[in-house]
Amino acid sequence: MTRIDHIVHVALGERAYDILIGPRLIDEAGAILAERFPGRRYGIVTDDNVAAAQLPRLTAGLDAAGLGYEVITLPAGEGTKNYARLEQVVEGLLAARLERGDLVIALGGGVIGDLAGFAAAITRRGMDFVQIPTSLLAQVDSSVGGKTGINSPHGKNLVGAFHQPKLVLADLSALDSLDRRQFAAGYAEVVKYGLIDDPDFFDWLDVHLDEIFSGGPARGEAVARCCAHKARVVIEDEKENGVRALLNLGHTFGHALEKDTGYSDRLLHGEGVAIGMVLAHLFSTRLGLAPGQDAGRVEAHLKRAGLPTTLADIPGTLGSTDTLMAAIAQDKKVQRGALTFILTRGIGQAFIEGNVAPEAVRAFLEEKRG
Amino acid sequence: MTRIDHIVHVALGERAYDILIGPRLIDEAGAILAERFPGRRYGIVTDDNVAAAQLPRLTAGLDAAGLGYEVITLPAGEGTKNYARLEQVVEGLLAARLERGDLVIALGGGVIGDLAGFAAAITRRGMDFVQIPTSLLAQVDSSVGGKTGINSPHGKNLVGAFHQPKLVLADLSALDSLDRRQFAAGYAEVVKYGLIDDPDFFDWLDVHLDEIFSGGPARGEAVARCCAHKARVVIEDEKENGVRALLNLGHTFGHALEKDTGYSDRLLHGEGVAIGMVLAHLFSTRLGLAPGQDAGRVEAHLKRAGLPTTLADIPGTLGSTDTLMAAIAQDKKVQRGALTFILTRGIGQAFIEGNVAPEAVRAFLEEKRG
Ligand SMILES: NC(=O)c1ccc[n+]([C@@H]2O[C@H](COP(=O)([O-])OP(=O)(O)OC[C@H]3O[C@@H](n4cnc5c(N)ncnc54)[C@H](O)[C@@H]3O)[C@@H](O)[C@H]2O)c1
Ligand SMILES: NC(=O)c1ccc[n+]([C@@H]2O[C@H](COP(=O)([O-])OP(=O)(O)OC[C@H]3O[C@@H](n4cnc5c(N)ncnc54)[C@H](O)[C@@H]3O)[C@@H](O)[C@H]2O)c1
Ligand SMILES: [Zn+2]
Ligand SMILES: [Zn+2]
Repeated sequence: MTRIDHIVHVALGERAYDILIGPRLIDEAGAILAERFPGRRYGIVTDDNVAAAQLPRLTAGLDAAGLGYEVITLPAGEGTKNYARLEQVVEGLLAARLERGDLVIALGGGVIGDLAGFAAAITRRGMDFVQIPTSLLAQVDSSVGGKTGINSPHGKNLVGAFHQPKLVLADLSALDSLDRRQFAAGYAEVVKYGLIDDPDFFDWLDVHLDEIFSGGPARGEAVARCCAHKARVVIEDEKENGVRALLNLGHTFGHALEKDTGYSDRLLHGEGVAIGMVLAHLFSTRLGLAPGQDAGRVEAHLKRAGLPTTLADIPGTLGSTDTLMAAIAQDKKVQRGALTFILTRGIGQAFIEGNVAPEAVRAFLEEKRG
Repeated sequence: MTRIDHIVHVALGERAYDILIGPRLIDEAGAILAERFPGRRYGIVTDDNVAAAQLPRLTAGLDAAGLGYEVITLPAGEGTKNYARLEQVVEGLLAARLERGDLVIALGGGVIGDLAGFAAAITRRGMDFVQIPTSLLAQVDSSVGGKTGINSPHGKNLVGAFHQPKLVLADLSALDSLDRRQFAAGYAEVVKYGLIDDPDFFDWLDVHLDEIFSGGPARGEAVARCCAHKARVVIEDEKENGVRALLNLGHTFGHALEKDTGYSDRLLHGEGVAIGMVLAHLFSTRLGLAPGQDAGRVEAHLKRAGLPTTLADIPGTLGSTDTLMAAIAQDKKVQRGALTFILTRGIGQAFIEGNVAPEAVRAFLEEKRG
């Protein structure tokens, strides 16, 4: 008796798939997979935190459904998204004798989803894979849309592939074992959808923030709305040649800050995005594009969620403005020298600006760190 | 004044591209690229042999056309198709600050084409690339069709991506610096096209073999016919879900032999394919599928080309039959346990057989090595 509260269909033709959202989908994954993909074997990729908190539920269901599987467990954390771990996962899938028709399951947050999805993309030139996102960030963002990859010393996510999953199972109860800081980091991406083009959703979040954090029905509703939003964008622009770049709101600044803090616990991805979104609003205000009070509302909302919103909120000392600028220039959203930023005309009115002068960014950053 | 003798169009919709075949295309590449891809920068990937013999012609043309480029030179040989070299190429492309719209050029044989193409596929989640194949094997086979990848300790080409080039430039004069053994190895793949489904081409090769080896007009004609054949197959079945597997005629045995000889100079890829094609014919004869005299004609033709045709032709001692069988089972053409082989009803009548009994293969191998 599978309880599915929401289904979001990602209509990508041959690559179409469903996102199922419900309270106990990890327990039910075995039954769902056995029905949807008869006769496959499974390579489960996870990290040690998720293995401790959630893996037994998954394997119990696979066992009950009589499905064969191997588990590859990696250390938790962004540092795992590297070449050596990629090789380890690919070799692990091959060692398990998984064939091209078998399935990789990514059980974990965005790190595991990105890494396992990329490993699936390149093992035997492309294996199918299923996302079982266990962090809020992964449920509302990284598990949907097929971007997979690892980090390079030159920057985040610079190596990867577009590889769509065959199915996404978002189990809301999995979030119960996620710590509050991680939950808040994922919440930054939830807010992002409102800020891009859905001011009503932002208003709704302002009302339901506490319920989302405490696990009421608004949590599932929020996850579903975010997935639907992301699915819409991905359908329109699968390979990020256009509008999909809007999803990078806050990310150019955010990535530079993450790089500067060494992709460490000092600043989580979503925390960088939170600060980045505030900076994007303030920068847009500075350029005379957006009303100042919108930046204020964004900042206040993210603060209520317990997120950092200013450069000063980052523990430790930041690198020089030159270092930050270099990171921004190396970010993959740079096109032929000019800087591309997601700017905004106010809450729910983000747009892509491909012609931002580096000097303006530098001056703005200098002031904000001041 | 570019002289192009043959153009083969690979009609893959959004991913369509041309294969240009001519006597001096490396010298003319700068002009051709400047015209077809204005405003790009180039990352040239090559190996040390090809860098010595052919790179100056390419860079002179790029310089003359005013194009910016960086060169990444790797050691020659199959051993280069590994994870560490992949990382080196990707990081080199990033260090050169090549952007998603820039172009990777693979200048070399199949090793460089496969590796550089794969690096292009995963750098920034997909950069464009151009193949400039310099070995006969690369011109007639590996540069066309978008299969890219590296080897795993578990087997050849087990890690990779489908990533079509934007253009292929086959310069016939490049083959003048290729040694005879390598030329012959590439020639095995030429013969393969006849054996699959074109008995007239096999007859034509029997007449023109010497002219192809000595560099007469039949050489360009042979390259063009092979490219046209491969293009046709790739158009029909880009991702190898069906007929494309026919191109693996001789390759299941061949890969097992290559693995057993450590991907070394003991046995070149094409040499393994030559032996593998003879074995595939003999095995088909053994199974009562093909007339024995066809296997004899194939063997005689490959011998005339200076290629090995029997297990005894491989220098050194082969591994056990168990080892060879394990390699065959790990080959990626295995589907759900049963062995898939390309068998034949005679010259030009190959077909895919998905249900070959491992015991029959084992008994056949035992006898052939005996
Ligand atoms: N592919 C995309 O489109 C996309 C989009 C956004 C972000 N990302 C990537 O996602 C990554 C960030 O994702 P993340 O925040 O989920 O990071 P993460 O995967 O590192 O997870 C965060 C932490 O929470 C733990 N965790 C996850 N689920 C848990 C659970 N249910 N119970 C207990 N602990 C749990 C993890 O072990 C980890 O320590 C970044 O690498 C980012 O680049 C990708
Ligand atoms: N992608 C595909 O569809 C496909 C198809 C067939 C084979 N392959 C792969 O191709 C590889 C074999 O290709 P290959 O035989 O070209 O091997 P290769 O790239 O190693 O080239 C063979 C040798 O010739 C040298 N060489 C190449 N061109 C030269 C030139 N013009 N002058 C002097 N030296 C030259 C190289 O340095 C090397 O030493 C294998 O890895 C195989 O798996 C791929
Ligand atoms: Zn993000
Ligand atoms: Zn081959």
